[in-house]
Amino acid sequence: MDGEGSSNHIGGMNDLENEGFLDGKEIERYWSEISEKSMIMYKEPLLTKRMNTTSQIAIVGANVCSIESLDYEIVENELFKQDWRSRKKAQIFQYVVLKWALALLIGLGTGLVGFFNNIAVENIAGFKLLLTSDFMSQKKYFKAFAAYASCNIGLAAAAAALCAFIAPAAAGSGIPEVKAYLNGIDAHSILAPSTLFVKIFGSILGVSAGFVVGKEGPMVHTGACIASLLGQGGSRKYHLTWSWLKYFKNDQDRRDLITCGAAAGVAAAFRAPVGGVLFALEEAASWWRSALLWRTFFTTAVVAIVLRAFIEYCWTGKCGLFGQGGLIMYDVSAATETYGVPDILAVLFLGVIGGIFGSLYNYLVDKVLRTYSIINEKGARSKILLVVTICILTTCCSFGLPWFSKCIACPADLAVTCSTESGNFKRFQCQSGYYNDLASLFLNTNDDAIRNLFSTSTRHEFRISSLFIFFAAIYCLGIITYGIAVPSGLFIPVILAGACYGRLVGRLFASISKLDTGLFALLGAASFLGGTMRMTVSLCVILLELTNDLLLLPLVMLVLLVSKTVADSFNKGVYDQIVKLKGLPYMEAHAEPYMKHLAARDVVSGPLVTFSGIEKVGNIMHALRTTGHNGFPVIDEPPFTDAPELCGLVLRSHLLVLLKGKSFSRNQVHCGGEILRKYAALDFAKAGSGKGVKLEDLNIEEEEMEMYVDLHPITNASPYTVVETMSLAKAAILFRQVGLRHMCVVPKSQGRPPIVGILTRHDFMPEHILGLYPHLSPHK
Amino acid sequence: MDGEGSSNHIGGMNDLENEGFLDGKEIERYWSEISEKSMIMYKEPLLTKRMNTTSQIAIVGANVCSIESLDYEIVENELFKQDWRSRKKAQIFQYVVLKWALALLIGLGTGLVGFFNNIAVENIAGFKLLLTSDFMSQKKYFKAFAAYASCNIGLAAAAAALCAFIAPAAAGSGIPEVKAYLNGIDAHSILAPSTLFVKIFGSILGVSAGFVVGKEGPMVHTGACIASLLGQGGSRKYHLTWSWLKYFKNDQDRRDLITCGAAAGVAAAFRAPVGGVLFALEEAASWWRSALLWRTFFTTAVVAIVLRAFIEYCWTGKCGLFGQGGLIMYDVSAATETYGVPDILAVLFLGVIGGIFGSLYNYLVDKVLRTYSIINEKGARSKILLVVTICILTTCCSFGLPWFSKCIACPADLAVTCSTESGNFKRFQCQSGYYNDLASLFLNTNDDAIRNLFSTSTRHEFRISSLFIFFAAIYCLGIITYGIAVPSGLFIPVILAGACYGRLVGRLFASISKLDTGLFALLGAASFLGGTMRMTVSLCVILLELTNDLLLLPLVMLVLLVSKTVADSFNKGVYDQIVKLKGLPYMEAHAEPYMKHLAARDVVSGPLVTFSGIEKVGNIMHALRTTGHNGFPVIDEPPFTDAPELCGLVLRSHLLVLLKGKSFSRNQVHCGGEILRKYAALDFAKAGSGKGVKLEDLNIEEEEMEMYVDLHPITNASPYTVVETMSLAKAAILFRQVGLRHMCVVPKSQGRPPIVGILTRHDFMPEHILGLYPHLSPHK
Repeated sequence: MDGEGSSNHIGGMNDLENEGFLDGKEIERYWSEISEKSMIMYKEPLLTKRMNTTSQIAIVGANVCSIESLDYEIVENELFKQDWRSRKKAQIFQYVVLKWALALLIGLGTGLVGFFNNIAVENIAGFKLLLTSDFMSQKKYFKAFAAYASCNIGLAAAAAALCAFIAPAAAGSGIPEVKAYLNGIDAHSILAPSTLFVKIFGSILGVSAGFVVGKEGPMVHTGACIASLLGQGGSRKYHLTWSWLKYFKNDQDRRDLITCGAAAGVAAAFRAPVGGVLFALEEAASWWRSALLWRTFFTTAVVAIVLRAFIEYCWTGKCGLFGQGGLIMYDVSAATETYGVPDILAVLFLGVIGGIFGSLYNYLVDKVLRTYSIINEKGARSKILLVVTICILTTCCSFGLPWFSKCIACPADLAVTCSTESGNFKRFQCQSGYYNDLASLFLNTNDDAIRNLFSTSTRHEFRISSLFIFFAAIYCLGIITYGIAVPSGLFIPVILAGACYGRLVGRLFASISKLDTGLFALLGAASFLGGTMRMTVSLCVILLELTNDLLLLPLVMLVLLVSKTVADSFNKGVYDQIVKLKGLPYMEAHAEPYMKHLAARDVVSGPLVTFSGIEKVGNIMHALRTTGHNGFPVIDEPPFTDAPELCGLVLRSHLLVLLKGKSFSRNQVHCGGEILRKYAALDFAKAGSGKGVKLEDLNIEEEEMEMYVDLHPITNASPYTVVETMSLAKAAILFRQVGLRHMCVVPKSQGRPPIVGILTRHDFMPEHILGLYPHLSPHK
Repeated sequence: MDGEGSSNHIGGMNDLENEGFLDGKEIERYWSEISEKSMIMYKEPLLTKRMNTTSQIAIVGANVCSIESLDYEIVENELFKQDWRSRKKAQIFQYVVLKWALALLIGLGTGLVGFFNNIAVENIAGFKLLLTSDFMSQKKYFKAFAAYASCNIGLAAAAAALCAFIAPAAAGSGIPEVKAYLNGIDAHSILAPSTLFVKIFGSILGVSAGFVVGKEGPMVHTGACIASLLGQGGSRKYHLTWSWLKYFKNDQDRRDLITCGAAAGVAAAFRAPVGGVLFALEEAASWWRSALLWRTFFTTAVVAIVLRAFIEYCWTGKCGLFGQGGLIMYDVSAATETYGVPDILAVLFLGVIGGIFGSLYNYLVDKVLRTYSIINEKGARSKILLVVTICILTTCCSFGLPWFSKCIACPADLAVTCSTESGNFKRFQCQSGYYNDLASLFLNTNDDAIRNLFSTSTRHEFRISSLFIFFAAIYCLGIITYGIAVPSGLFIPVILAGACYGRLVGRLFASISKLDTGLFALLGAASFLGGTMRMTVSLCVILLELTNDLLLLPLVMLVLLVSKTVADSFNKGVYDQIVKLKGLPYMEAHAEPYMKHLAARDVVSGPLVTFSGIEKVGNIMHALRTTGHNGFPVIDEPPFTDAPELCGLVLRSHLLVLLKGKSFSRNQVHCGGEILRKYAALDFAKAGSGKGVKLEDLNIEEEEMEMYVDLHPITNASPYTVVETMSLAKAAILFRQVGLRHMCVVPKSQGRPPIVGILTRHDFMPEHILGLYPHLSPHK
């Protein structure tokens, strides 16, 4: 292990399957060594020099959290085969029923949370805004500001406190974490029950506090958490467990559930069931099966039905200030449907500039996150302080900037809804019959502000100067808000800024294009979303479901294509960027070009720890204690075979269970039959996060250390193998397509030891490879 | 090779990679052997006893067509590596630009064809219907029938002649063939230029002839054909070739293009760009990458824009009888939006019964196809005769049945459009001011009939008895029409029958449910589609894009979920059924349960033909002549290595190119360097179907037979290998996920020959496995 290779190494992943040999003290020693060098190859992840972390706050380096790879391989050991073959029809039926029942529960749960979230935000923020406008209409301007500011700060501080003290992993959007989980990266805190709790309430408080944040990202994370909680059979910590979920004790079934959860989250946030399915497919999931489409669709259908039922209930006026609005659903169907060449040109222009703004947004968010990391690193108090600071800034903007706008007379034909507490036109400081256009945007919930911007046939409702001020303010506030310790979605800030930008462009092109300004606002939002998120079909469908007008489809498609193409030439999508920034070892679907120049054997790192088919307990205990490996090759040696041959791969978790059971023998003999009788395959099934047997739980006597244990029953006899001369690119594609955790590299020629090494996720990370071979170019 | 194993074998696949040894005479001998036995294990594919075929007519056993597997593996031989590493930025840029340019061209081409198709059908069928109704209004009933019937028979005979003589593969829907191609099954005729030609014109003629067929399936096939033609660099046969497409000379890039083509087809047929993408994803494609979503989306966006531009042009009245209609777009937005518990119950009932009718449809289509196979087998003339018979039957139904309906007085408020030549209400034999409701459905294009059924606020337009007659007639005609020798889509018959069924249910439940009958018709169509096609999200989106009303989403989702679930408990989806019926060796994404009981070594079949690293030309020629294998393991033997070791796998196509170049040497020495200088990787790139070097093209002298050729430069040094003890289920999942053609099975222990056998697609087919192990149960 030379310094350079292993330093990047640690940056890449804490709990390495195939390197290890790092206990706490060693890591500290590395720290001091590494911090002296500057060994950054190219644009470094934020955590290159630190341990890897997985929470949004952890971005900031404060919370170190160990991560592991998920394992989607079929572990074909004797125990498993016995179970696999003997599974009865009734059990298969139970599994299928449970699968659908869980999808139903995820849909119900996420739908309920989505509705609860909306009703809470509408009521809290509604109360706050009513109070403020009451004072304003009484001309008590200072009192109004005091009330508004104190509400905001109180809510923000509460949200920050929840995040800082209970679940730091709940901060931020959550989509990058879900994306990483679905790529096979597991960290306990990502989907823990505490994260779920904070995500729900933190999001409500944060959105109510008037931050420029959305509830969409958090809803996705919430959906994933609900799915994880259900799939793990509840939480042992909180004494909520269901034992009949035994068939879901594997990573593959959990992954499917969490994919459903992510889709349900989007469906609940936007009331966009088809959009939710497509989001899960396009952005969230790394592996996808046709069967999953069907189940995800069912989940989002349940969400849609739950939401619809509750909204119909609320139409009767029993939900407080919820009223007709709440769950976003904008109507731009009054917009004109025909367009000509000048319109298309205007839209193309809008798309190009929107793409540039979008990629600039990503660039600035990245910078801000890196800056905040230094502040947040200092502890919970500084986290809360940062949140309160941003809150005060936001409050000042939203209350202060409207004063720059002059009062406008209400349009004659709309006098009914103008200048009242609700609706498009806010009175603010103006006299009756007049409205303040900036206040109509700032002093509103984000949902209502978007509704105002999308409103059709209201070309002159907002002055160009007001739109410009609002755009600048929201664009900057959106950037500086993401990264503080509250659950904060990125969709709404981007839609807000984009809609305002689109309306501006619409006003500027008024002489050329006859398209409605509301439609321009929608296209502006699409261009910003395309420029930041870089999704295509899912964004398109979400926008169409939001606005309920399919005739806009060609225009929205065009804008998304243009803005994504433009933005892609500058940088990566915002979620990919955050995943990278956090140092999460994300496996891309394609191999990097420099991998073509390397063979599999070039990156396996040693020393390799192997076991005999019948191994001494002491040796196993030593290996488990001194390495962090999660998989060990098992080699059958003479006298049991003629020559050493690869028997298979044994997993750390299985070894721990076997050692705990103490099925030892005094001599080196086969005793697999006994083990097969003693254990069922379910004893070795993957427990929920943090629930498995740990090394500390073992209590092996000194004399037992000299005894032998037969590893054959728990050895995966057919691990995926590649020959050492296979190019790394080909190996990476195999690794990713099959969803592996360990891949055995075997020698080309006979007569050598039967295994050369093991490739894990970490060995495919650019930081590792380029650390070993610095002369390779990371660029295409 | 025992009789039983190999008999199923031949049924499964003609051009076997790993079995071979069957030349024409041997096959004939097998025929006679086999036909004497009855060795059908369980529900047999239609072609168990025959050679495998791939065209719709071939279902019928008449056209025998050899099929091969596609190969998505990265062939890592020395030549390829040299090329891979030396590829310059300019070349990569050229590749990317071409990729998008091809997507654009596919979109443009498919859009144009879609529009042309519509305009042709509207004009031909419009002329025919005008002529008929002219005669009818003059009370010349017999003349009207003669005109109508002769038009229909003429058009049908022309369509059948095209199909029977030029391209038998163009008959039928085409979706099963495209699905099979995207699963990795290649047959030359599936996507040949002649198929494209017949598909376009045959579909126009067939639809115009008044058959109960749609143009949607054929459009998907057309899109795929256009993509294939572009991706192969044109057709050498027709002197249309582009040489700059060299980077697309591999199966993976072609697969991507054809996926785009399939999506473009749906987009053009239904004007549903998002639905097209989802269709490609859910139904057509077997492998999917996120990047493909983006490109497919671009293609369908181009289609949508092309169609829109042409339709706007046609609004000016320059497209003959095309008018406002043509491309289907139904509007049910006037339907009520609120619904209660009784409505939901009615919808659930509709879904359940719709699912049953749907699965019955599949069952009957299967039976009819098997019956027609006997007729179609007899040659082109009997094919045409069958088409004309069905045409006469259809004509009699559509002209005769309306006489059973009484004239209805035109509704007072709709008198303008009633009883004229166009519009909802057809006069038929009635006097002015009256209309015949059955004629309004029968004597119309299918698109207009669906529009009539979907029309809202017209509860009493059609009498229950008329709806019942129409439903029965269309349901039966739809079933007996599929399988005749014309391009025939399944969507439109199913939608027609379903819409009629839905309207019937709506009328029957009128006292319970307040939902509009037009909405019921839509839901009925959804239930039938769900019951036959078994798609979910894509159908849902296609229906929403057709009707342009997103508020129907929850109801459509509910119906689709119910009907698919109900129908799934009876049989498979109609496309899967047809794929199976044709004997296409489709690889499912999941492993069958009985595969768990077998290991990889249990199904490899011998004898295995291997080559030395430096092999005698005569041996290679012998192996190529006597076997049909497409991949041969290459083994390095002493004195070049210490022990025999697996060098890799060499492909038949590469061997043929190498032998044609005659880079031979007199002695058994390495001469790889020379070959590397002489050839470029592109010389070995996969040529378009039917364009590669053939065994007959080789002209090896007798003395050259004794010379040696170095196979190392063209040997794939890192084929995917599995250990012989891996369960067949795990091997099948790997094979399918990575998209392989050959998978090497290596021995567990050392000291044995370095390869046990090769697994190919065929070895995973149930017919093969259950032939070898008849005691295994094929059921779950």
